[in-house]
Amino acid sequence: MGNPKIKPPSKLVLKISGHIANPDNLELIKEYCSAIREAYSKGVKIAVVVGGGTYARKYISAARSLGASESICDTLGIRVSRLNALLLTSLLKDVAYPIPPENYTEFLKAWSTGKIVVCGGFQPGQSTATVAALVAEGIDADVLALAARIDAVYDKDPKIHSDAKKLTTVTTAELKKILEEQSVKAGRYELLDPIAIKVIERSEIPVAVFDGRKVEHFKKLVYEGEIVGTLIKK
Amino acid sequence: MGNPKIKPPSKLVLKISGHIANPDNLELIKEYCSAIREAYSKGVKIAVVVGGGTYARKYISAARSLGASESICDTLGIRVSRLNALLLTSLLKDVAYPIPPENYTEFLKAWSTGKIVVCGGFQPGQSTATVAALVAEGIDADVLALAARIDAVYDKDPKIHSDAKKLTTVTTAELKKILEEQSVKAGRYELLDPIAIKVIERSEIPVAVFDGRKVEHFKKLVYEGEIVGTLIKK
Amino acid sequence: MGNPKIKPPSKLVLKISGHIANPDNLELIKEYCSAIREAYSKGVKIAVVVGGGTYARKYISAARSLGASESICDTLGIRVSRLNALLLTSLLKDVAYPIPPENYTEFLKAWSTGKIVVCGGFQPGQSTATVAALVAEGIDADVLALAARIDAVYDKDPKIHSDAKKLTTVTTAELKKILEEQSVKAGRYELLDPIAIKVIERSEIPVAVFDGRKVEHFKKLVYEGEIVGTLIKK
Amino acid sequence: MGNPKIKPPSKLVLKISGHIANPDNLELIKEYCSAIREAYSKGVKIAVVVGGGTYARKYISAARSLGASESICDTLGIRVSRLNALLLTSLLKDVAYPIPPENYTEFLKAWSTGKIVVCGGFQPGQSTATVAALVAEGIDADVLALAARIDAVYDKDPKIHSDAKKLTTVTTAELKKILEEQSVKAGRYELLDPIAIKVIERSEIPVAVFDGRKVEHFKKLVYEGEIVGTLIKK
Amino acid sequence: MGNPKIKPPSKLVLKISGHIANPDNLELIKEYCSAIREAYSKGVKIAVVVGGGTYARKYISAARSLGASESICDTLGIRVSRLNALLLTSLLKDVAYPIPPENYTEFLKAWSTGKIVVCGGFQPGQSTATVAALVAEGIDADVLALAARIDAVYDKDPKIHSDAKKLTTVTTAELKKILEEQSVKAGRYELLDPIAIKVIERSEIPVAVFDGRKVEHFKKLVYEGEIVGTLIKK
Amino acid sequence: MGNPKIKPPSKLVLKISGHIANPDNLELIKEYCSAIREAYSKGVKIAVVVGGGTYARKYISAARSLGASESICDTLGIRVSRLNALLLTSLLKDVAYPIPPENYTEFLKAWSTGKIVVCGGFQPGQSTATVAALVAEGIDADVLALAARIDAVYDKDPKIHSDAKKLTTVTTAELKKILEEQSVKAGRYELLDPIAIKVIERSEIPVAVFDGRKVEHFKKLVYEGEIVGTLIKK
Repeated sequence: MGNPKIKPPSKLVLKISGHIANPDNLELIKEYCSAIREAYSKGVKIAVVVGGGTYARKYISAARSLGASESICDTLGIRVSRLNALLLTSLLKDVAYPIPPENYTEFLKAWSTGKIVVCGGFQPGQSTATVAALVAEGIDADVLALAARIDAVYDKDPKIHSDAKKLTTVTTAELKKILEEQSVKAGRYELLDPIAIKVIERSEIPVAVFDGRKVEHFKKLVYEGEIVGTLIKK
Repeated sequence: MGNPKIKPPSKLVLKISGHIANPDNLELIKEYCSAIREAYSKGVKIAVVVGGGTYARKYISAARSLGASESICDTLGIRVSRLNALLLTSLLKDVAYPIPPENYTEFLKAWSTGKIVVCGGFQPGQSTATVAALVAEGIDADVLALAARIDAVYDKDPKIHSDAKKLTTVTTAELKKILEEQSVKAGRYELLDPIAIKVIERSEIPVAVFDGRKVEHFKKLVYEGEIVGTLIKK
Repeated sequence: MGNPKIKPPSKLVLKISGHIANPDNLELIKEYCSAIREAYSKGVKIAVVVGGGTYARKYISAARSLGASESICDTLGIRVSRLNALLLTSLLKDVAYPIPPENYTEFLKAWSTGKIVVCGGFQPGQSTATVAALVAEGIDADVLALAARIDAVYDKDPKIHSDAKKLTTVTTAELKKILEEQSVKAGRYELLDPIAIKVIERSEIPVAVFDGRKVEHFKKLVYEGEIVGTLIKK
Repeated sequence: MGNPKIKPPSKLVLKISGHIANPDNLELIKEYCSAIREAYSKGVKIAVVVGGGTYARKYISAARSLGASESICDTLGIRVSRLNALLLTSLLKDVAYPIPPENYTEFLKAWSTGKIVVCGGFQPGQSTATVAALVAEGIDADVLALAARIDAVYDKDPKIHSDAKKLTTVTTAELKKILEEQSVKAGRYELLDPIAIKVIERSEIPVAVFDGRKVEHFKKLVYEGEIVGTLIKK
Repeated sequence: MGNPKIKPPSKLVLKISGHIANPDNLELIKEYCSAIREAYSKGVKIAVVVGGGTYARKYISAARSLGASESICDTLGIRVSRLNALLLTSLLKDVAYPIPPENYTEFLKAWSTGKIVVCGGFQPGQSTATVAALVAEGIDADVLALAARIDAVYDKDPKIHSDAKKLTTVTTAELKKILEEQSVKAGRYELLDPIAIKVIERSEIPVAVFDGRKVEHFKKLVYEGEIVGTLIKK
Repeated sequence: MGNPKIKPPSKLVLKISGHIANPDNLELIKEYCSAIREAYSKGVKIAVVVGGGTYARKYISAARSLGASESICDTLGIRVSRLNALLLTSLLKDVAYPIPPENYTEFLKAWSTGKIVVCGGFQPGQSTATVAALVAEGIDADVLALAARIDAVYDKDPKIHSDAKKLTTVTTAELKKILEEQSVKAGRYELLDPIAIKVIERSEIPVAVFDGRKVEHFKKLVYEGEIVGTLIKK
């Protein structure tokens, strides 16, 4: 039957997992930046949101073992996500806003310059997935692209269930149910949290989940609207 | 059997609904400020988070009908909540931090002065309930007091079901289930959203829900640890 | 004899009374935004300053009755004026700077982007009329357009004197005298305060007063330079 | 008949002319700082507002002759006033807030620390006299002390009229009339502008004008409430 | 002959190498925090400056290999140093300023609260050693304590020259000469850069270098003024 | 043999001594602004860094004699340099970023607008020469032009040694040696400090030193790449 398709987007948010965009994956960062730069040069408007990943974990678990509050742990994770964002910015320097905006207002100001805007997290108690959803809503994006650690949404956790089925499309309602069942397994499946889903629902922006290690999937989405993974719709 | 009790708190967060703390309820604001001032003078450390309420709704629905994004609507609501916070601040001026902090970092700086800190919302995509939970976590509060529009948590929406039962205690897990069932009815029951509950769970801070129009219930909580309403615990 | 005329402006400041641009007047806001957008698309550079109006009064009188200092009352009024400014911004989003600047420096930065800039008040002790005059001076505007609650400047308060005469042109010196005489009547006539007039005098920018409920008067000013109301000149 | 007296103040704002507090008057600055420090050590709460003076004039007239807008000229003057404020701060360092606040909100935060707060101007279009009046209102000061270039208020400009009479007390209404008549003479007499007087009127804070070169007059005001100059009252 | 001694300090700056204070050294961080807390409780005023260390290197070398400018590399290093500073802050939370100040002005404001202030770097082109020297100058510290990766200053690089001699005291002039000779060897010896030394010279604050892995050396310095390492003096 | 030449730059940083760009040299400021404006109109991208000069000295020596710390003295000097920067900005207003950025991050944001950016100093402990070098590095400038108080680099201090020889080219290594020898003479020769030289070395950007009173030398550099003075290269 083939992959789901949307109209090739003229405005999009790309959320890259911090497990992918970090100092240990320079080749992948280069590929993404070159793909982003090319799309931008062809008129696609792009905002990028980067997660914290491995180094965020490192600082968070250190702080936690020192007795820090979870909000301080969040703060550390957010700051690491901005380091990752700066790595991408430094490669995109002539076409990107020079410093990752640190809250929603700063993002809007940066976006109004017409440049590519790369940011990390904003505030404790708010995931970078939620930031990506808010940013997508704020710029009225055609799609929110999730360059994830997994290659698609499954009906069960594929690491546990050998019969887990890959889903090519899923509604936000179904997704919530799937995530709830899996969340019993200790936060393993960190694609989207409830607030991010709520924002996606209210803004009705389609979400494309794909294997973040494959930059060609991002290009397919940008130029052909093809989603090699899962399309999430309201 | 009597109301549930906790140890009288020495550090607390009071979240007041914006439907209660607004320019149309000056007498109630005066009563709260006088109660807050008295508790503070007896050594209780207090942070106050105020919601947006009626005037927030007014600006939000205007913006929505003008086609504003939901994040701008959130922004308007947050700004109105800060107006309400300023009303309380102006009554508490000698014992309160003079201006409502506008994000988590500013809150921490304000709190470190030892004064009462009054704030509204922080960021789009984050409810004032979540702000209150984060603030409670950040200062390691003994209790989060919710001066609500309802007098307690019910097992069903009491406006619809005549047999709805008032709960004196409820776990966060039970609460999540109750709220999910009710949320089908269009956001009617806005006590706590999923992120706020998640923060409450991870920080293990007890939450006291009471009828916000009754300042004496706040005093009972402060001085006797008695909860005239519902105690939410992990 | 007809209405006074100036050269159609290529750069202007539009000050809209908060009694006109607020959530209770959505149709008028829409008309203004559509007129502003059209003028901008034809190359006219526009800054908009919005007052506080009804909701500012609401919060100010609440704070005053709670014993707040007048500077806090000013602060509340300014913050409400920014809410009104955000309403306009949300309609103009693709052509406007996304967030109302909060002081003169921020205004200059926003203006340098080439977008329409919408703002409210700046600082306690400074009226939005003064903000509009400063902004007009700062961008070297061709005219300061006052979309007012009254339809023109009169030689006496028309609500009291049945023989009050509408003035088609008036000098700043005459205006000061008129306002002084009326100010005895408790701040009723709030078109321009002494500092705003002083700024207008030193910058020698003409001021056009017109009935703010008639957006067509704004268009006449923009495209024909015709002032249906009063022209104030040094 | 003797000098007018008020109750010795426990909270005051001292406004020092920039013609007095600048790098050419180090001895006077030292005397003021030592007097301020002593009063503070005796429990008097003090905010200090410093004007721009000679060096402000220097930069302003340079900018004006380069064609800068008056608002930029104001900005330069404000920035010079902050330099003067920093000079005082550096002498008061252990008892003063370390950096001059740059707007009203920052002032309130600084004041809430309990330290002496020294500041210069805030915003274009607002004199340092107005800043001093707003600050006095904001902290509910017992008196606003004006260390001026003149020794008192006169009924006419004493530099022109040999029969000018020194006034020991004057109402704000009388003062406005005197200033208006003199203002014809090109801004010569820059004690208080109309907005500053309006703020003084609404807050009903008495103003003490004295010869700023005589620090002993400041001490007389602080310890005895005696005004060697002119008392301005509503 | 014994170690050099100074008067036990009542006000000090502790600079900890980022190779020591980072998430891989939690035990050492705990020991430092407990020593800092104890000294503070005995009345010693303390500012702490933390370097970037291993993780700074990680991000810097990634950015450099992506072609980032050295100023962006500095920026990344500074941001990592603030992560390390936050780790210490989270352990000292009740006695420390809650968020690392990000520039000199913010530092002064934080310091004026009387709390322990922990910070990382300030600006590109400025080492954390220079930040420590500036902060020591700004608070008029009795000593600048350098918890270093080496145990003392040597006359030659001890890793290269087996006859390198440990110095118990050294003048800033001598130190400059030693560092210059070693700097030929590619930045290996990063104790103090020329600007940091210049600030130390002009402020005449003694510097104590000791092995940062030995918290007992810090305690000896605080309580006995004994320097187990090298004393640098003008 | 003629002057050294480089390729005419398409992107440059112009550092003007504060002894040249200040309110006492309006004609020179006008000439520079007109030259800068012309070059910009021909496509040359320009950042300008202005020093503090005479008035900085005035405030610094006042503060020093009042016992201020050297960091506060630096702060005063930086603030004066920004006044000088504002003078240039006010002449370049339509083509320049409207307000001098106050740190490196703000500079990058301002630069990303494509306008001419004029700034003064950034932080205590950092010379405006270092700021200029950092800015040149950050924007990857083709040359750093130093409009100096001297007409070239000499092998000895020409004010002392009649046989001092003017150098047309010099390496950074030679320059460091020359400056060190001269620095014995009390900071007389303030062209470049060690950190500025270090930044220049790492970025490998050529530096052109010329007599700042001769605007024609700046034009020669811009349009012909000719250096009438000294070329400093790694």
